[in-house]
Amino acid sequence: MPMFELVEYAAAPNEVKSVYDDIMKTRKVDWINNFWKALAVHPPTLRRIWGNIKLVMAPGALDALTKEMIYVAVSVTNDCEYCMHSHMASARAKGMTDEMLAELLAVVGVANENNRLANGYRVPVDEQFL
Amino acid sequence: MPMFELVEYAAAPNEVKSVYDDIMKTRKVDWINNFWKALAVHPPTLRRIWGNIKLVMAPGALDALTKEMIYVAVSVTNDCEYCMHSHMASARAKGMTDEMLAELLAVVGVANENNRLANGYRVPVDEQFL
Amino acid sequence: MPMFELVEYAAAPNEVKSVYDDIMKTRKVDWINNFWKALAVHPPTLRRIWGNIKLVMAPGALDALTKEMIYVAVSVTNDCEYCMHSHMASARAKGMTDEMLAELLAVVGVANENNRLANGYRVPVDEQFL
Amino acid sequence: MPMFELVEYAAAPNEVKSVYDDIMKTRKVDWINNFWKALAVHPPTLRRIWGNIKLVMAPGALDALTKEMIYVAVSVTNDCEYCMHSHMASARAKGMTDEMLAELLAVVGVANENNRLANGYRVPVDEQFL
Amino acid sequence: MPMFELVEYAAAPNEVKSVYDDIMKTRKVDWINNFWKALAVHPPTLRRIWGNIKLVMAPGALDALTKEMIYVAVSVTNDCEYCMHSHMASARAKGMTDEMLAELLAVVGVANENNRLANGYRVPVDEQFL
Amino acid sequence: MPMFELVEYAAAPNEVKSVYDDIMKTRKVDWINNFWKALAVHPPTLRRIWGNIKLVMAPGALDALTKEMIYVAVSVTNDCEYCMHSHMASARAKGMTDEMLAELLAVVGVANENNRLANGYRVPVDEQFL
Repeated sequence: MPMFELVEYAAAPNEVKSVYDDIMKTRKVDWINNFWKALAVHPPTLRRIWGNIKLVMAPGALDALTKEMIYVAVSVTNDCEYCMHSHMASARAKGMTDEMLAELLAVVGVANENNRLANGYRVPVDEQFL
Repeated sequence: MPMFELVEYAAAPNEVKSVYDDIMKTRKVDWINNFWKALAVHPPTLRRIWGNIKLVMAPGALDALTKEMIYVAVSVTNDCEYCMHSHMASARAKGMTDEMLAELLAVVGVANENNRLANGYRVPVDEQFL
Repeated sequence: MPMFELVEYAAAPNEVKSVYDDIMKTRKVDWINNFWKALAVHPPTLRRIWGNIKLVMAPGALDALTKEMIYVAVSVTNDCEYCMHSHMASARAKGMTDEMLAELLAVVGVANENNRLANGYRVPVDEQFL
Repeated sequence: MPMFELVEYAAAPNEVKSVYDDIMKTRKVDWINNFWKALAVHPPTLRRIWGNIKLVMAPGALDALTKEMIYVAVSVTNDCEYCMHSHMASARAKGMTDEMLAELLAVVGVANENNRLANGYRVPVDEQFL
Repeated sequence: MPMFELVEYAAAPNEVKSVYDDIMKTRKVDWINNFWKALAVHPPTLRRIWGNIKLVMAPGALDALTKEMIYVAVSVTNDCEYCMHSHMASARAKGMTDEMLAELLAVVGVANENNRLANGYRVPVDEQFL
Repeated sequence: MPMFELVEYAAAPNEVKSVYDDIMKTRKVDWINNFWKALAVHPPTLRRIWGNIKLVMAPGALDALTKEMIYVAVSVTNDCEYCMHSHMASARAKGMTDEMLAELLAVVGVANENNRLANGYRVPVDEQFL
């Protein structure tokens, strides 16, 4: 259960409604997912985090799907259940297939294993990489 | 300093040399980086981990560069210094520009922040994502 | 579900009851929360962990509320659901408002993001900080 | 060594200089620490992260020192060397004594231990905390 | 809920059935646990991960029970609920008693605390350990 | 560099000396490693952490070597450099061979990978494990 009551659109103060409106307009959707309804209890956080997401997840040198898959990789590594669900959904909406997700998870798995092997064996960084 | 002495090619037993040869042939390079020289102290681990990498990092439904960037995202999240250096180098060799790396790191940063906000606010997963 | 059956007061051996009594007396409460009932299956762990908490969470150079908020910050970073719930409750009982919790979570979020940026950019520590 | 060359003030483009100026003015200092010089390679990240820090670390319902200590607690949990050094320095500048730091680290240690005990024993959350 | 539908034996393609058969034969059991049924959506991952487990968890210089307990220690540190449950069950089947589990969890707890103290106090590694 | 000056035996106050003496007597060694010299800046932490270690790492239902290896597994997972070095040294002193260490690291690697696969695939816990 959430720490605070979720802030629904109808009951939201104007400064929250305007963020909700921008989320729906930017994403071309007609509903607000719970992450934002939870943050809305503290409007400066809602505005700040939406600003971060809007800027960082927009296509740039990396396309939007690649960004979503990177986001999923981090969320799986940290085991954030909400983030896995929401960003796997976003990635699928942008074209990620089952096969792509399976390969993404395989890379995440191997990287998590090899991170510990590199640490445990105390491997010195090669000069060629510096 | 490494936990074990690195196993150089010239001094390697044949079962290690054959893995080293396959690494260099597969990657079209003429040297072996320290990760493999450290694992080589235990040949079953060397063979197993190279088999994992060879299978998982090869292009498939995801291209090789996207896989390298996902690997970097995990390694930054876990702060594996060796892995960051070696896989940023691999990603650059496959075409990652400074701008792409900066955007990758921005997504990693935002995902790490939002993972904790989703956890700390105990956000319930939306039905739409299930 | 817990790994072991919870040890209720009525059924507890004397060495467990005496720890339960000290917990209730120290905290001025009349019930034992599940964390202790779970640890009680192994009395040396129960005694040791209660001793740690009793010593470390008592007011000293830092007041008790600041300590609870630091505990929450760690628990959110590690995503320990039990610990978040129990220590947010303790912090609220000591005076943490909704606004303070929202600011605490914002700092936790920003720190988790910036930790990865500092690592990913491999920022060298300034001489001024050493 | 940093991933990119640090951006010194004299060599910085105007959009970077204006952020550097705001950092120095806000903090009442006359130098820029390496974190910002590293991020400056990508001005949108520099601006965004400085905006986050400026907003979140300012005194509000929590005072600035408490916020710095929460930041340190997260950075120690994640083992971010740069962040520990820089934010321990900030906390000391705002009044944190050796005794306060030692107590902060003790709470961080105990929370990290108890997080794993709560997880490992699979302790069910008490109804009183919900 | 799982990301993909679990692949039951009766409905599995032959390449999956042959891995399932090897799992049951190697472990001398007559059922397949959900981890494998989830991975089976992507047969190369199923084969690879089973190959890793079959090789690494077999008794060698370390006996099978010690390996299971090390696996549990990692899973508790990372808070992987599925892995804790499945490998605690495996460890119990190989002889782990309640007392042994309680001691294992105590070591995991203390190590997690002391890891942060060593980091937070920035303890230099003694020459005697190098 | 350490956060505080290390407390050498000759310069230590009596309450620190008595802990140092107990460490050397219990471990049958004639020197104090840096971890304790760092904690000694805050004697209540020194006493508490030594009490934890003395109790938890002593042989019981698990032998002392198994406990050291579990400690190493956690420290590698968390990448605590000091703890890896000191507890690998302790484990070697208690009989851990190179082969045993290599197998331990292999289990740590596989567990870290599979923890993420179990999370990423959201595998439901089998009834048989509950």
